[in-house]
Amino acid sequence: MAQEMSDVTNTPVVLHPPTEPRTDATKDRIVRAAAKLFLARSYHSVGVNEICEAAKVKKGSFYHFFESKSDLAIAVIDHHARAMWRMLDEHERAARGPVNKMRATAQVTRTVHEGLVKVFGRVVGCPLGNLALELATTADEAGKHAANVLAEWEARIAGHGRDAEEVGLLAPGTDPDELAHVIIATMQGMILLAKVSNSAVTPIYEAMDRAIDHGVRRI
Amino acid sequence: MAQEMSDVTNTPVVLHPPTEPRTDATKDRIVRAAAKLFLARSYHSVGVNEICEAAKVKKGSFYHFFESKSDLAIAVIDHHARAMWRMLDEHERAARGPVNKMRATAQVTRTVHEGLVKVFGRVVGCPLGNLALELATTADEAGKHAANVLAEWEARIAGHGRDAEEVGLLAPGTDPDELAHVIIATMQGMILLAKVSNSAVTPIYEAMDRAIDHGVRRI
Repeated sequence: MAQEMSDVTNTPVVLHPPTEPRTDATKDRIVRAAAKLFLARSYHSVGVNEICEAAKVKKGSFYHFFESKSDLAIAVIDHHARAMWRMLDEHERAARGPVNKMRATAQVTRTVHEGLVKVFGRVVGCPLGNLALELATTADEAGKHAANVLAEWEARIAGHGRDAEEVGLLAPGTDPDELAHVIIATMQGMILLAKVSNSAVTPIYEAMDRAIDHGVRRI
Repeated sequence: MAQEMSDVTNTPVVLHPPTEPRTDATKDRIVRAAAKLFLARSYHSVGVNEICEAAKVKKGSFYHFFESKSDLAIAVIDHHARAMWRMLDEHERAARGPVNKMRATAQVTRTVHEGLVKVFGRVVGCPLGNLALELATTADEAGKHAANVLAEWEARIAGHGRDAEEVGLLAPGTDPDELAHVIIATMQGMILLAKVSNSAVTPIYEAMDRAIDHGVRRI
């Protein structure tokens, strides 16, 4: 690069002119490429260079949009969260009653992981749980951000749980907050086991449905 | 190194004489230092140099005992597994009946994570689950090794579950293999949530006990 420079010192040229415009579409391409690479491998094992290559953008563009890899990770988490809230909204709207609205989380989990298996050929983990866990014992703020989205998801389930409690649909002694926590824990634990043993998606949402069954009054 | 060599070609000297003997105690020190560093941070974020420093051994000693970092990770997993089987043996021997032998896993989980909180000041994750998950989508054989130990643990619980089933102690429709899988998933999911939200150990083993309750016949 330095040699190229010295060959052209008298000519006002732009070295490596940017081939991409710095638009939202470029930013989105970076986020999607990173989301895919983080899922295929992990946050730590993927570098900014590789993300730029996969997104077909130059490093300058990357740092135009993101201060750091951590900043990108936060955008990746928001990208996953948006997709998830959209699906959850849809399933919850279609569901009749608070118990079925709780079950929407199991349905979304099914849709997400069946989709991921189509792309990656295997269970690759929860897009949020992976990042939350990988960064939990680091100073990286992105880890906390992912954990917060999971907590928000849990709070949403707990809300339906309280609605169910109010109309007498929860099993005696069931605490809606604890139930919501167990549903998310079952999801995360089942996804983890499916990922590490490279096994199927079906047991994940089935176990979530059973966890919900245990919290619901038998009629 | 090469320059030092050429200076002493005529003298039969040992370059960098080891200050530590290459004994099992040295090997054990490396394994313990690595186990601690992997838990405090992660497998990928800790290098061999740092492990050698923490264990106060020279790199030559490291490679005397381990072919690679992955080879060390397998020794770390075996180190954790040995400690766990020992505790599980103890608790299972003290437990009366197959249901209580299943509960031994919740008790061991409590002991392990209360101990880890004393050392690290926080929930740092399952020593096996962390490595299994971090290496699941890599070619590193250590990930598979950790997943196999988790599967062995699950098989052990399933064995007690079948004993419980035979004497009519399981709830109608409960499959002992599924129950064992849910117990391990509950453990992994609850540990994951406690780690990412930096929260307490108690809900982990309580949720495991409840998962066992759901599989047991109400008397």
